[in-house]
Amino acid sequence: MDLEKKIQYLYDRAAIQDTITMYSIGQDTHQGDDRNVLEQWRSVFTPDASVDFTVFGIAQCSYQQLAGHLRGDENQKGKMNEAFSKWQHLLGLPKITIQGDEATSRTDLWASHNGHTIKGMPQYSVYAAGVFHDNLIRTDDGWRIKFRRLEMHFTDTVHTVSADRVL
Amino acid sequence: MDLEKKIQYLYDRAAIQDTITMYSIGQDTHQGDDRNVLEQWRSVFTPDASVDFTVFGIAQCSYQQLAGHLRGDENQKGKMNEAFSKWQHLLGLPKITIQGDEATSRTDLWASHNGHTIKGMPQYSVYAAGVFHDNLIRTDDGWRIKFRRLEMHFTDTVHTVSADRVL
Amino acid sequence: MDLEKKIQYLYDRAAIQDTITMYSIGQDTHQGDDRNVLEQWRSVFTPDASVDFTVFGIAQCSYQQLAGHLRGDENQKGKMNEAFSKWQHLLGLPKITIQGDEATSRTDLWASHNGHTIKGMPQYSVYAAGVFHDNLIRTDDGWRIKFRRLEMHFTDTVHTVSADRVL
Repeated sequence: MDLEKKIQYLYDRAAIQDTITMYSIGQDTHQGDDRNVLEQWRSVFTPDASVDFTVFGIAQCSYQQLAGHLRGDENQKGKMNEAFSKWQHLLGLPKITIQGDEATSRTDLWASHNGHTIKGMPQYSVYAAGVFHDNLIRTDDGWRIKFRRLEMHFTDTVHTVSADRVL
Repeated sequence: MDLEKKIQYLYDRAAIQDTITMYSIGQDTHQGDDRNVLEQWRSVFTPDASVDFTVFGIAQCSYQQLAGHLRGDENQKGKMNEAFSKWQHLLGLPKITIQGDEATSRTDLWASHNGHTIKGMPQYSVYAAGVFHDNLIRTDDGWRIKFRRLEMHFTDTVHTVSADRVL
Repeated sequence: MDLEKKIQYLYDRAAIQDTITMYSIGQDTHQGDDRNVLEQWRSVFTPDASVDFTVFGIAQCSYQQLAGHLRGDENQKGKMNEAFSKWQHLLGLPKITIQGDEATSRTDLWASHNGHTIKGMPQYSVYAAGVFHDNLIRTDDGWRIKFRRLEMHFTDTVHTVSADRVL
């Protein structure tokens, strides 16, 4: 590969990583009943992108519909804010492969969630170990995901206890 | 952006990531009562850098004072080694924005801590899901954090049990 | 550093990160009794690479022997599939240092494992917080690990409960 191509490869790779990261930033900037993940996701997905989150019981749908399934609307809560009050979508190292104006990526996800406090019930958190498998394309506005599939290794529900001292 | 600027951008970005990573390496190279985090942090922060860890009940202070609050001194333990014996400060993908000689960064943190074993008490660990928000500047010695704010999504305390078999 | 050297440095750094990432992809692509981690690990290690996983009670050995210790063979299970059914080897930000055709790297690991379900026994998971310390060399086929040492901060075993609702 000549130097110019190496630079373009590295620059594309950094841009793709940022697109993938912005998905998590969208999730985590908007906690609890703040539903506005599309604020970030508009710069993550192509307008017609679809997502496969069937491991969560969500049939393949558009990314806008995914936002609705997870976060709800003005009338009802979504899967996330119905069960959880806080969360984090931490990403491991992505493995990115670029071919011209298309790319694929595989990124580990450690998603942790704080369950709502329910009187008389033990407190709990849910830790989910999964992988995002993405197909991306180069657009005039930058790299965008056109298809995302979530693979899930496992989901752990653990009881938590109140701590007198926190780190 | 021309090729030369792209190279500089990518090189700066890599250097900034390393600066952020070195904070965690400082924390995790020095476990338990080994307090010498400044060995690494001197190359992480500007000499006059300040940090906002008010989510831990630490008023905004210098990075040197933060080291004292967390690790203590020869007379008393700090918040970390008082409660915990081992820890890890694992970082997710950073979102870095560079403008000339200044930069901002947002990096997910999964900080896990092993509580001290106390006779007659259940063993526990604390898992903290947070974000580092950094302002950095380019110095003659490389990129340095001049202000760091820790945002915390939640902190889980969980009981752990002894295992006959380890991974 | 001149521009050409910067490009080569960044390109090498990206390649080294991918080599390290491929180790985890090998582990996680092959879950449970699927033992074929060498499918990926052949492009991770030099043919004569050795690994130090003594923190798991595995004496220093070749990477091929490590695969056997962890995954077993046609006659018996290995340490991983004997105890666990699912796992994830999520990696934090690597700190990579390159000198010519050699490199060293330090990468945080958050390895989570789902224990087998055993009738009458509580369900459990094991979370391991560690660090991979790698020595790499440039080969005709790309960067390869010639020596890997696993450092372990701690290993938590936690009970998990069944969840009516998943994220």
